[in-house]
Amino acid sequence: MPDASINDFFTPRGVAIIGASTKKGSPNNQTLRYAIEMSKTGKVFPVHPKAEEIEGKKAYTSLLEIPDPVDLVVMAVGSKSALQVAQDVKTRRESKGDAGAVAIVTAGFKEMGTPEAIKLQDDMMEIMRSCGARVIGPNCQGIADFYNGVNTSFSLPPVTLKGGLSIVSQSGAFATSYLRWAKEQKMVGMNKFITLGNMADVDVTEILEYLGNDEKTKSIAMYLEGTPNARKLMEVAAKVTKKKPVSVLKAGRTAMGSDVAHSHTASIAGDDAIYDGAFKQAGMLRAQSIADFYHTGRVFDRMPLPKGNRICLLTVIGGPSTICVDALAAAGAGKLATFSESFKEKARAILAPAANVGAPDGYIDMTASVNPKMHTDIIKLIMEEDDIDAVLFLTSPPGFLEDEELANSIIDGYNSVPDSKKKPFLTALMAGNSVAKCRLIMEEHGMPTFDMPDEAARVMSNMIRYAEYRKNA
Amino acid sequence: MPDASINDFFTPRGVAIIGASTKKGSPNNQTLRYAIEMSKTGKVFPVHPKAEEIEGKKAYTSLLEIPDPVDLVVMAVGSKSALQVAQDVKTRRESKGDAGAVAIVTAGFKEMGTPEAIKLQDDMMEIMRSCGARVIGPNCQGIADFYNGVNTSFSLPPVTLKGGLSIVSQSGAFATSYLRWAKEQKMVGMNKFITLGNMADVDVTEILEYLGNDEKTKSIAMYLEGTPNARKLMEVAAKVTKKKPVSVLKAGRTAMGSDVAHSHTASIAGDDAIYDGAFKQAGMLRAQSIADFYHTGRVFDRMPLPKGNRICLLTVIGGPSTICVDALAAAGAGKLATFSESFKEKARAILAPAANVGAPDGYIDMTASVNPKMHTDIIKLIMEEDDIDAVLFLTSPPGFLEDEELANSIIDGYNSVPDSKKKPFLTALMAGNSVAKCRLIMEEHGMPTFDMPDEAARVMSNMIRYAEYRKNA
Repeated sequence: MPDASINDFFTPRGVAIIGASTKKGSPNNQTLRYAIEMSKTGKVFPVHPKAEEIEGKKAYTSLLEIPDPVDLVVMAVGSKSALQVAQDVKTRRESKGDAGAVAIVTAGFKEMGTPEAIKLQDDMMEIMRSCGARVIGPNCQGIADFYNGVNTSFSLPPVTLKGGLSIVSQSGAFATSYLRWAKEQKMVGMNKFITLGNMADVDVTEILEYLGNDEKTKSIAMYLEGTPNARKLMEVAAKVTKKKPVSVLKAGRTAMGSDVAHSHTASIAGDDAIYDGAFKQAGMLRAQSIADFYHTGRVFDRMPLPKGNRICLLTVIGGPSTICVDALAAAGAGKLATFSESFKEKARAILAPAANVGAPDGYIDMTASVNPKMHTDIIKLIMEEDDIDAVLFLTSPPGFLEDEELANSIIDGYNSVPDSKKKPFLTALMAGNSVAKCRLIMEEHGMPTFDMPDEAARVMSNMIRYAEYRKNA
Repeated sequence: MPDASINDFFTPRGVAIIGASTKKGSPNNQTLRYAIEMSKTGKVFPVHPKAEEIEGKKAYTSLLEIPDPVDLVVMAVGSKSALQVAQDVKTRRESKGDAGAVAIVTAGFKEMGTPEAIKLQDDMMEIMRSCGARVIGPNCQGIADFYNGVNTSFSLPPVTLKGGLSIVSQSGAFATSYLRWAKEQKMVGMNKFITLGNMADVDVTEILEYLGNDEKTKSIAMYLEGTPNARKLMEVAAKVTKKKPVSVLKAGRTAMGSDVAHSHTASIAGDDAIYDGAFKQAGMLRAQSIADFYHTGRVFDRMPLPKGNRICLLTVIGGPSTICVDALAAAGAGKLATFSESFKEKARAILAPAANVGAPDGYIDMTASVNPKMHTDIIKLIMEEDDIDAVLFLTSPPGFLEDEELANSIIDGYNSVPDSKKKPFLTALMAGNSVAKCRLIMEEHGMPTFDMPDEAARVMSNMIRYAEYRKNA
């Protein structure tokens, strides 16, 4: 049998869930429910030794009994059944030619570190390979595709917000947490989601290449513990980053962290300095924190690349602005813009007399005496100014500005120029959940918001760095 | 006249608000409203040229007309009236002996950088000094005291949650944003709040000393742009940190940031490396980010100091744990604990068979097969174990665990030991606002929660570092 295509994972004619549970709320019941909920065709087939029906779907006692085409097999049953499932996959491939994509969410293989568990994984994989089945996992949460309606994870929230971000992760939790973190405030629009676990077959490099060629993927976020073939990964990454941004969070920066990574997915984290240099050379953006990782990936999907590194810092809060500028300078990519005299005149005409326009250059403190119209007008002026490449806007909205009014005044200012003149605009609203509504409205209009000004500065620096790489690439 | 006492700011018999506005929603109206709302005695006196009553309070045309004792004068009127107000303060001090504490929230002084504005500040301060009035500001949001019911800020939310955190800040926005950030999820319990602005009289050192002697202050958070007498600040800090923790966020790490700080409060940020070393020597904890600053200050108020640096990482999410441990190791203060054989046996008896107890040592991955009782039992076991000094708990709560049930199972485990055996326990719930309720319940029970595991690791490292300093001090 020739090898199945990676496409089978994302565009299956049918999905079999081996080990689907009848027990409401259990992980293996939830996997089935989420798969059904996301499916556009309803072609989801639970496999269970006794049940006749689960969650309204006819159940089968074996993969072999399902009469419909099944391109994606989700193995959620205990590892002791691993060889039987592999054999069924092989039989099905040889008899019907389908069952080419297998997502093994079950744990208890190589990551256990015992000779028995390692042998079990090896034996299972030998059968899979012999029939050309492609395997994601084991020890993962499989995949999801929000456009095609596929979901094999037990904990991926039924997010409906589609977008251009795709995630590839050696940790299921990192991928699902990313989306749960983003869900309530609609901070992420998703395309594909791939968790790799032990990478017994399909590895991070193959998926990266696939996402690089995937039209709907605008931004790739990668969580990596380690890969045996780092050189190949970097070669592929260097090609992908010439088309779209790849942010990476890499575990094993320290010996202590490497130990944990090894116990997690049996990965060898490798020499961190070598990875670090290779990421840079391949044009990947290495995140310095989880917040950095989450925000950088999503912002690339929502904002255009900056044309240069000249930033206007617009603020109503002086103190946080100093820390924001410190973070910007420390990151080393962006600098404050130089305002022309005519720009400064126009800005002063818009703002209150006490406003600080241009001390230092590139900096505007509107002071607390602001109203919605001032927001719209000053943002419009900044958007129209050719000597400014990107905008950081910091506010702790005064109590006298309503969330909705403030959000709309910012959005109106941003949208006052045609798309071709748009520049990245990141807003930090330093007021936690007390401005949740304002943030939600802005996110719904594609404008990224942050809790923390220094975090926004670091993400902006990532955008500038990537834009410069693309210019020189 | 002898100098008034700093105490007058926090325990005033009456508060005059010069420049109180009749215009609903304006900053100077809000200042009055918040002052009234917070006041326990109702002794708040608006001063306004024409109004007879504002917000239900009789208004006076001048400070001199108020018949009741006024210990705290809030100057919110435009800077052109500065000398008149100063003269009224002097007259009042000389005739009635009160009006000793003056909070000048008005801007338009030295921070403007013009000769006129600098002279105005100097002239005003000369009058104030001549009558022994103590001044906070100008160009600030004044002060608040949540136990005594004082508030001079126009943007400080009417938080009612009292606690042991006091904030001293050269930026009003940093102080108010801190509380707004914390408000909805009740992450901070507040005592005193002091914003210093241009520090024309009362400076950061004097306030630090005051807070050091303030019994209800358990933790001090300081935002600093610069002080002309850094040596004195460090001398005082070295004494205060022997009694209670002081976290500091310092602006001006970079030249670009220093420029902004100068335009903000006319501060000279100074040589960052010198500040950095001095903070360390004085036992202050320098925050590396705004999130670090906010969390470190609040956590010291809620959790006991660790007795050592041996950390147990309890998790259900492998990937995020690797990044958490990397952050812990990079911070260099904590290390993973060494589990005894009997501890491991007991832990395994509590958890699912697939759970990883002790690979690597100090690490427990419960896997996704968890229930509330397991949470309570394993946390109880960890709390009772003498070879563990502190706990990091990471979870992205599975959908099948209800927020309330999960929160209570964690709280029960933590509270299963007497207070004398309590150790710091920081929880990262990687699921954004989708677990807001769980986080709120935990915070209400004094258990700090985080969005991000690496952030929790950095804050834990700050706790360990400070505990070690206290041991050696």
